[in-house]
Amino acid sequence: MVEEKKRMLTAKKEENFSEWYSQVIINSEFADYSAVSGVIVFRPMAYFAWDSIKNATSKLFRENGIQDVYFPLFIPERFLEKEKEHVEGFSPEVAWVTHAGKSELDERLAVRPTSETIMYDSYARWIRSWRDLPMRYNQWNNVVRWEFKHPTPFLRSREFLWNEGHTVFATEEEANAERDVILGIYGKILKEYLALPGIPGRKTDKEKFAGALASYSIEHIMPDGWVIQGPDFHNDGQNFAKVFDIKFIDKDNTEKYPYQNTFAISTRELGVMIAVHGDNHGLVMPPKLALIQVVIVPIYKDSNKSRILEAATKLKDLLSGAIRVYVDDRDSYSPGWKFNEWELKGVPIRIELGEKEILENKVTVARRDTMEKSTLGMEGIKEELLAMLDEINERMYEKAKALMLGHIHKVEKFEELKEAVAKGGVARAPWCGKQECEDRIKEETGAKTANMPFEAQDYATGKKCVYCGEAARAIVDFARSY
Amino acid sequence: MVEEKKRMLTAKKEENFSEWYSQVIINSEFADYSAVSGVIVFRPMAYFAWDSIKNATSKLFRENGIQDVYFPLFIPERFLEKEKEHVEGFSPEVAWVTHAGKSELDERLAVRPTSETIMYDSYARWIRSWRDLPMRYNQWNNVVRWEFKHPTPFLRSREFLWNEGHTVFATEEEANAERDVILGIYGKILKEYLALPGIPGRKTDKEKFAGALASYSIEHIMPDGWVIQGPDFHNDGQNFAKVFDIKFIDKDNTEKYPYQNTFAISTRELGVMIAVHGDNHGLVMPPKLALIQVVIVPIYKDSNKSRILEAATKLKDLLSGAIRVYVDDRDSYSPGWKFNEWELKGVPIRIELGEKEILENKVTVARRDTMEKSTLGMEGIKEELLAMLDEINERMYEKAKALMLGHIHKVEKFEELKEAVAKGGVARAPWCGKQECEDRIKEETGAKTANMPFEAQDYATGKKCVYCGEAARAIVDFARSY
Repeated sequence: MVEEKKRMLTAKKEENFSEWYSQVIINSEFADYSAVSGVIVFRPMAYFAWDSIKNATSKLFRENGIQDVYFPLFIPERFLEKEKEHVEGFSPEVAWVTHAGKSELDERLAVRPTSETIMYDSYARWIRSWRDLPMRYNQWNNVVRWEFKHPTPFLRSREFLWNEGHTVFATEEEANAERDVILGIYGKILKEYLALPGIPGRKTDKEKFAGALASYSIEHIMPDGWVIQGPDFHNDGQNFAKVFDIKFIDKDNTEKYPYQNTFAISTRELGVMIAVHGDNHGLVMPPKLALIQVVIVPIYKDSNKSRILEAATKLKDLLSGAIRVYVDDRDSYSPGWKFNEWELKGVPIRIELGEKEILENKVTVARRDTMEKSTLGMEGIKEELLAMLDEINERMYEKAKALMLGHIHKVEKFEELKEAVAKGGVARAPWCGKQECEDRIKEETGAKTANMPFEAQDYATGKKCVYCGEAARAIVDFARSY
Repeated sequence: MVEEKKRMLTAKKEENFSEWYSQVIINSEFADYSAVSGVIVFRPMAYFAWDSIKNATSKLFRENGIQDVYFPLFIPERFLEKEKEHVEGFSPEVAWVTHAGKSELDERLAVRPTSETIMYDSYARWIRSWRDLPMRYNQWNNVVRWEFKHPTPFLRSREFLWNEGHTVFATEEEANAERDVILGIYGKILKEYLALPGIPGRKTDKEKFAGALASYSIEHIMPDGWVIQGPDFHNDGQNFAKVFDIKFIDKDNTEKYPYQNTFAISTRELGVMIAVHGDNHGLVMPPKLALIQVVIVPIYKDSNKSRILEAATKLKDLLSGAIRVYVDDRDSYSPGWKFNEWELKGVPIRIELGEKEILENKVTVARRDTMEKSTLGMEGIKEELLAMLDEINERMYEKAKALMLGHIHKVEKFEELKEAVAKGGVARAPWCGKQECEDRIKEETGAKTANMPFEAQDYATGKKCVYCGEAARAIVDFARSY
């Protein structure tokens, strides 16, 4: 057998997180660096995971009345400049197309960092009457934000894939009612597909989206206690409608500006998934996102090879259709090498099938999440494995949730806040609502506000701002962030 | 009821095809022009159709062992310059990113016109041994080709969506064997999803892909008799492997260059679909690509409104899940207005449901493809409608095929060729294989070679070149082309 260099990880997650993070992504062949700085290549496992997230989200969007569209990649410079906050928020990171072939363009074209401006130019032509509303469109696409901060695969990538929902309503009430629906869909996808918990809440005005009235997010806590913003939802009010002249004739025959929302989930989630679930053996893939859910490793000698490979193929045929299964029958690698390889790639369940197993009409099953081995009889094995895949997702979610909760520290005093942040964690604190306190806390501790968690707001009553001591108006999560 | 301006077509397909083509796309709300010249917006019907093509093709790719990946949108200029023919073929149409934010980039980045160069840079790192082969990857993405010819929605768009398959094999035989598989998949998708026939064949060397050894295509004939190239497949041989230094250690322990193929189907097909199937009432959507397959138009007065809407909803609930169905219960439009609207949008089946239908426990059914009305009893209506949708696709395909065949003229003399081309058609002619004759024919008639149809090659034996009279080596389709 060929002895190839094993691509095992040398960095430890608990010792050098960022080196471990790179190694796990590259060595598992999940993704790779590209020749374009700050942009990665999605190899089959990564693209399959994203495509699964996309398809599941898209299905829920459709069931909810949201339709997919596709708008141009390029945005004329004059559009981006129309909305002041918006252009200030994005123009420092815009990639500009200036030439086509040998010709210089009359007007520079932005490679979309987000598509509000080009979409709303069309919306203004399409929307005429209350009968055209609500207009709830979404697109799945690639966007470019040429950030000059240190890029990190998935977490901070100069090109990424996402959905951008852009919906328009006749009334403010309808627009506001969409928030819980969308955050509910995102939360469901995170839990059921990525096995990830999150903290839904409202962003402070300082941290809201450039151009929005109010922004909402689901925040994740990374293993090091720093937070990273997950899916988000923005109430844009009539802001863009006024700038882009989107108007409709209402039932009462008067002309009105409609209310708009935007929302997104991106490939950043794959980075959170890797960081939260992965371990020192490699990736741990949530079953629904795993390109291979069950790998069968046949264990044989020359003398029993054909019999064992036949049994492996039979088992594969039995499982196919219900489970994404692969038989690793490569002659040139030892079973031990294969075990390491599939652990590195995070395949949820490994089945070992050798002479002993065949004689006893059972298989040995190794779970990637717990690394535990057990034995399964062949009777009803498909159903057992399906149940085990569900159980793995559930356990991964619960483990991640416990990890997340362990990083949240409810504090009321500034000293406690500093301490919580310093040891790498989230300080959940009462806040007066003034940006001055938010700014000061950032200056003194490096912690930004993540969001104001919905579930924590009751605690604000009677509390005092962690910084200035005035009456608290909200409970906010302060943390260092990615 | 509000009387809105009807968006009926004023141009006739047979009188002014290009004006008709624009009107049918814009007025039906299938797509729209954007603020970026030469780039269109895919509205929900168009994006649904493309997404359906994508999903169906992707499924067949996967079943065949092809995996999806995602590579960066941007390609460093030095990569594009590596392959001489390739750069000459694409650089006149490349959109160049020169700035990010306020900074000028050190190296210009091409917005991908196709991804060979950036993909093969990674392939060179990933492929080491025969065990890594075949490597059969594909990506679904957006590409930009800033053509300066007159852009036409879908048919010639500066940004379009497509798949690009890029596969690598250890041997030439394996690489060559992939051709029929891929053209077979594309042909199946065209027939079953777009109801479109096509002519598979090999491109002449003059018309082959920039960088390929041999190119193959499925050509479509448009209603005016001009041809347009559909899906294609290219044998690249070891050409790119040598340029990008993709090498592998074979079983015999020697280092070799592998063999590569590329293949694509694009959103251009939506333009062909519209052009071939559409009529003077508007779009005629193939059922599998129709966002709405069956529209129920309830016909009521104030007195029976609730009863009839209730029956319409009941019917909708019965069909949902199996059929994409929509009840048009808008009060502000008359039934006649709605009929026109859904005909314009090409919805395959319209159901009319009024007092008479309810009393007789039946519905009136209007087929978009034939514009014929019939009556269907409520008993087994779901199965009847499903069968009708299949029948519509089949009839649309057969009709399109007859139209295509009617445009093909087998010719042996140059005078016949000129005549066939002049009256708007394809001249299928014997050819000596020399580019000089191909060039002269183009100069004198405006006709380019479409391809050398596989099915017609037998006829070449004993024939003489339509231009020079030397022994024919192939049968070629000459036609004006889009």
